[in-house]
Amino acid sequence: MSIIAVGSVAFDTITTPSGHADSVLGGAATYFALAASYFAEVRVVAVVGEDFTAEHESVLTKRGVDTRGIEHEKGKTFRWGGQYLENLNEAKTDFTELNVFEKFQPRIPPEYKDSEFLFLANIHPTLQSAVRLELSDVKLTGGDTMNYWIRDTPAELRETLRLVNILLINDNETKMLAKEPSLPRAARKVLTMGPTALVVKHGEYGATIFFREGAFGIGSHPFRAPALPIEEVKDPTGAGDSFAGGFMGYVASQHELNREVIKRALFYGGVMGSFAVERFGTERLQTLTRKEIDARFQVFRELTHLE
Amino acid sequence: MSIIAVGSVAFDTITTPSGHADSVLGGAATYFALAASYFAEVRVVAVVGEDFTAEHESVLTKRGVDTRGIEHEKGKTFRWGGQYLENLNEAKTDFTELNVFEKFQPRIPPEYKDSEFLFLANIHPTLQSAVRLELSDVKLTGGDTMNYWIRDTPAELRETLRLVNILLINDNETKMLAKEPSLPRAARKVLTMGPTALVVKHGEYGATIFFREGAFGIGSHPFRAPALPIEEVKDPTGAGDSFAGGFMGYVASQHELNREVIKRALFYGGVMGSFAVERFGTERLQTLTRKEIDARFQVFRELTHLE
Repeated sequence: MSIIAVGSVAFDTITTPSGHADSVLGGAATYFALAASYFAEVRVVAVVGEDFTAEHESVLTKRGVDTRGIEHEKGKTFRWGGQYLENLNEAKTDFTELNVFEKFQPRIPPEYKDSEFLFLANIHPTLQSAVRLELSDVKLTGGDTMNYWIRDTPAELRETLRLVNILLINDNETKMLAKEPSLPRAARKVLTMGPTALVVKHGEYGATIFFREGAFGIGSHPFRAPALPIEEVKDPTGAGDSFAGGFMGYVASQHELNREVIKRALFYGGVMGSFAVERFGTERLQTLTRKEIDARFQVFRELTHLE
Repeated sequence: MSIIAVGSVAFDTITTPSGHADSVLGGAATYFALAASYFAEVRVVAVVGEDFTAEHESVLTKRGVDTRGIEHEKGKTFRWGGQYLENLNEAKTDFTELNVFEKFQPRIPPEYKDSEFLFLANIHPTLQSAVRLELSDVKLTGGDTMNYWIRDTPAELRETLRLVNILLINDNETKMLAKEPSLPRAARKVLTMGPTALVVKHGEYGATIFFREGAFGIGSHPFRAPALPIEEVKDPTGAGDSFAGGFMGYVASQHELNREVIKRALFYGGVMGSFAVERFGTERLQTLTRKEIDARFQVFRELTHLE
């Protein structure tokens, strides 16, 4: 089944303790699409500038990603620069140049309209809502957001949250959104805002999914997936979007949505995040095989599995 | 089988977002002993002052803990005050009064000398080494330490680490001890210092055990146990020591030390930590039943278990 991913395509300039990368292809939609492409058909809606070449586009098309929804505008592509020198868990932004992304108005190609799944990457909540409302037939919508929208556009975000089935955010975003320092309580509060399930991403410690009572007919006990202890995190950029891609991609690849599928999806999310950080930019996500992915899934499983 | 626990008995004054407790029984040896008492016979070596009454002692003896190794000295018991108002994961110390603990010289009663297991709670590494050398027949030694000893007594700590089989510390202590920001690399480095296994406690995210190559004949893949998302952490004091008590207690209750036992021990560590934080001080650890403990073990297992 197919997933539409709506979000940013960007060129990132990244410095980490392992090195430096200049203007490499990135953006939430890119990481998500590449990660999800190993599981399902992925269709991207984004905007790029004149500096986005056929070669850049081929990074996506080589993985079978449908790029007909990427609009080419006059000007430059969104550019971001950041560093993780002091803390691999949090980027320090050096610069943000929105460029063509500033006026991004997602347009869904007619050929995309039969998609069953939708992922709203981290963009303005009003745009997220508009896309979701336009795609009235999607079966399941995943979404992301960030501190900026939580703080500055709370009303718009509330609207979006009513339209999202599974929200994927991190610990701090969850607590900030719920104005509640206890994570389980914050999660419960977020689940009253619309989403049926909330995936809280813990970075190097994995992720927890919380369910609304009776969600997907599977009860309300949370579930946790670990993250792999990785010796050298070369570049954490895109780990969360890759997680979302693995999670949503696996969900979209299954015929049924039950607790076991969602649990496995959470593990696959961790798997794709773990690959993403092994190289700078999207490099590692471009050349994986499903065999490598499933081998790592087994490693993740063994990591916490009691007989 | 029996475990000797050597460490502090204290009176703690604690403030958390859930309330306040004044001069309640605490200390690493106390939390460890109570948690381990549900699995194995526990014998404590500690020092207390004249303010430590028969009623205080009965908290331990009611759980079957052997207190013959608790020395009663003139003066006051070790007192600590701290608060967790801003951060439940890290205490802000209000005061530390070492009192009789300042001159603590652990003395092992002859009746303790047939113990198979030893836990060296967080005390001066020179005292830890002396105890371990005196108890030459113990089968397995677990140990804890803290930033203070890592920074100020590195040579003494190196000596202790050669005598410890399983070291149980947190993420920051591991990175600090190894002078290495990557946790898996830091863990590998710590394992060259003596311990056969290293348990890294991640607080609300569980714990990971790293093994030296070929440790216990079980290979060297790490293993992770989750922590339960707890709605209201009333008082985090003693969570790490309770974790150690559950871990070591379960290990001591088994006839064999294999990978499966160690994995289960890591889960039981998390279980005992999760009970400890539900009430102020040691209250929750005083009245548990093995049935409650095993029920929560199942909850922990379900939390990450894939079919």
